Amino acid sequence: MYSSITELINSIGPLDAAAVKAAQERQAKLAKPPGSLGLLEDMSIQLAGISGQVKNHVEKCRVLVFAADNGIIEEGVSSAPRSVTMAQAVNMTKRVTGMSALAKYFGNDCPQVLDRKLMAGGTRNFLKEDAMDRETAVKAVLTGAELAKKAKEEGFDAIGIGEMGIGNTSSSSAVLSVLTGLSIEEVTGRGGGLTDSAFAHKKDVLERAITARKPDKEDVLDVLSKVGGLDIAAMCGAYLGAAANRLPAVIDGFISVVAALCAARLCPTAASFMFPSHASYEPGYMRALEELSLKPYLNLGMRLGEGSGCPIAFQILKAACAAMNGMALFGEESVIDDGYLDEIRKGDSFTV
Amino acid sequence: MYSSITELINSIGPLDAAAVKAAQERQAKLAKPPGSLGLLEDMSIQLAGISGQVKNHVEKCRVLVFAADNGIIEEGVSSAPRSVTMAQAVNMTKRVTGMSALAKYFGNDCPQVLDRKLMAGGTRNFLKEDAMDRETAVKAVLTGAELAKKAKEEGFDAIGIGEMGIGNTSSSSAVLSVLTGLSIEEVTGRGGGLTDSAFAHKKDVLERAITARKPDKEDVLDVLSKVGGLDIAAMCGAYLGAAANRLPAVIDGFISVVAALCAARLCPTAASFMFPSHASYEPGYMRALEELSLKPYLNLGMRLGEGSGCPIAFQILKAACAAMNGMALFGEESVIDDGYLDEIRKGDSFTV
Repeated sequence: MYSSITELINSIGPLDAAAVKAAQERQAKLAKPPGSLGLLEDMSIQLAGISGQVKNHVEKCRVLVFAADNGIIEEGVSSAPRSVTMAQAVNMTKRVTGMSALAKYFGNDCPQVLDRKLMAGGTRNFLKEDAMDRETAVKAVLTGAELAKKAKEEGFDAIGIGEMGIGNTSSSSAVLSVLTGLSIEEVTGRGGGLTDSAFAHKKDVLERAITARKPDKEDVLDVLSKVGGLDIAAMCGAYLGAAANRLPAVIDGFISVVAALCAARLCPTAASFMFPSHASYEPGYMRALEELSLKPYLNLGMRLGEGSGCPIAFQILKAACAAMNGMALFGEESVIDDGYLDEIRKGDSFTV
Repeated sequence: MYSSITELINSIGPLDAAAVKAAQERQAKLAKPPGSLGLLEDMSIQLAGISGQVKNHVEKCRVLVFAADNGIIEEGVSSAPRSVTMAQAVNMTKRVTGMSALAKYFGNDCPQVLDRKLMAGGTRNFLKEDAMDRETAVKAVLTGAELAKKAKEEGFDAIGIGEMGIGNTSSSSAVLSVLTGLSIEEVTGRGGGLTDSAFAHKKDVLERAITARKPDKEDVLDVLSKVGGLDIAAMCGAYLGAAANRLPAVIDGFISVVAALCAARLCPTAASFMFPSHASYEPGYMRALEELSLKPYLNLGMRLGEGSGCPIAFQILKAACAAMNGMALFGEESVIDDGYLDEIRKGDSFTV
């Protein structure tokens, strides 16, 4: 367990420059037009910088789903009732939610709910008072970091960072607006599916809340404690913990990318350990991803959350490794090999 | 073997409307905000229309890679020599090219080169004469269709349609320009990687070739035979064969999407059996995909060809099936189940 955020951040080092260079050199030698595998090439180089090895494997993957109740839902900013958070957290362990059905299919199972309760009843209503104490926000960050560390210790090659928390698109929009200076109008969407009037109300609540709470945009912990959530704070910590433990961390949707931005603001080096997944439908998503200088791999129009983009993104990381590890180098393969041609001729009537 | 293109096209039927409706109804009952799985939902509904079943499985997948020599390379329109086509076709069977390293990793193996030679030495130089006779173009289309049929007969759940043919971005640009009326400037890219002057030369050659050959844009076979390639023609046939055999067909990059457009022009219903994969870097790719009213799932900046996007797209189709088949329906799951909570508590100190 990390004793402080300072200790956590101080344990984050940069990408391994020698491994990055060696990986770039190997990419240049792969038998293909340079750059023709696009972002798969970049991923393989980033993975090398993380592990310190040119060849990498992303086989054992875990989606960490941070579940929390958000007090702001008292203001009617969400289309789903509070009870859905708990219900879906449990349903995940039954492998029947969007994320966990995908995780199960791809072999990244999700069998446990871990108790990391920090506030009875979840955060407070941040229109009326700070969502949580600063001390609690720190605990939440360290809790997330601990779970990333645990994943590394248990032999995982990568984690995905997801969430389940009715009301958390509201806290995410508030945090993103404060951190970036973008207006609530620019960074707020309909979440699970609000009507026009409820959507207008959500934006009005968030604007009034920020005015009332006055979070300091230069102080991420102040922002998280005043208008954030336990889910977002712990996810921020999970990104920091992933970086501290040199574990690739996949960003899911809107809440996940806001948490990633919080982590990068606390420690810019942490961004080197992040991989995007899909472009969320929530309007604030792209703004946050741009702040991280990342581009989504997938355009699937998804907006489910839970970490549902992560099991698919893991397949893309696997593809990046498969190309880097499996392709021939220039000069290594030769077609002028009659014995080999004889062999493949057996399969069908091959003629040259 | 199909005896004619008419016979082939007449064997293509529409999506199963009852299965589409039943799949839409199941999607609406899945425990998630409606539409929140985006294109994964659309894919699952399309797969239902193809198979006639609500639940589908995309497990056994095959990438068909059509290799051909293209006579137009005599004009210096390509950065790679002709010999690369043959070399890479063989290297694919060694699982060391981009596509085949990915296919091997994901379990879609690619062990054989099949001899389906239609013209000794490949197509003719279409700046100077028609690339092939109309009869040969018909044979190429029927050859592609036969290979799709074979995949169905051998129990495959989906195919991907790729290519290996130095010079085939030139023939693809020519075909796309004629079919759509877009200028060569709009639909031509640098292929494997041309210099500025070679790129300008490529476009000039293609413009002069179209002027000289005068293909009839209303007659796909005329276009394919005059300025196309054996690879593109066979790929067009593979899409038609996939549709005729109710097999999902994944589009790879630029050449693949031009062939898909040829198939859709010959038989618009064939487009119902197509799935895009990644956005190719070639500028004509998006124009052709728009003609098919499709949007790419993946934005990876890839431009390798070979079918390299298909093994990744198969993972996305698998994800669509996993969500459709594995998620709970509204009302089916309930959190108020103390026995179950007791069980998951064993994993860690879970408290409610």
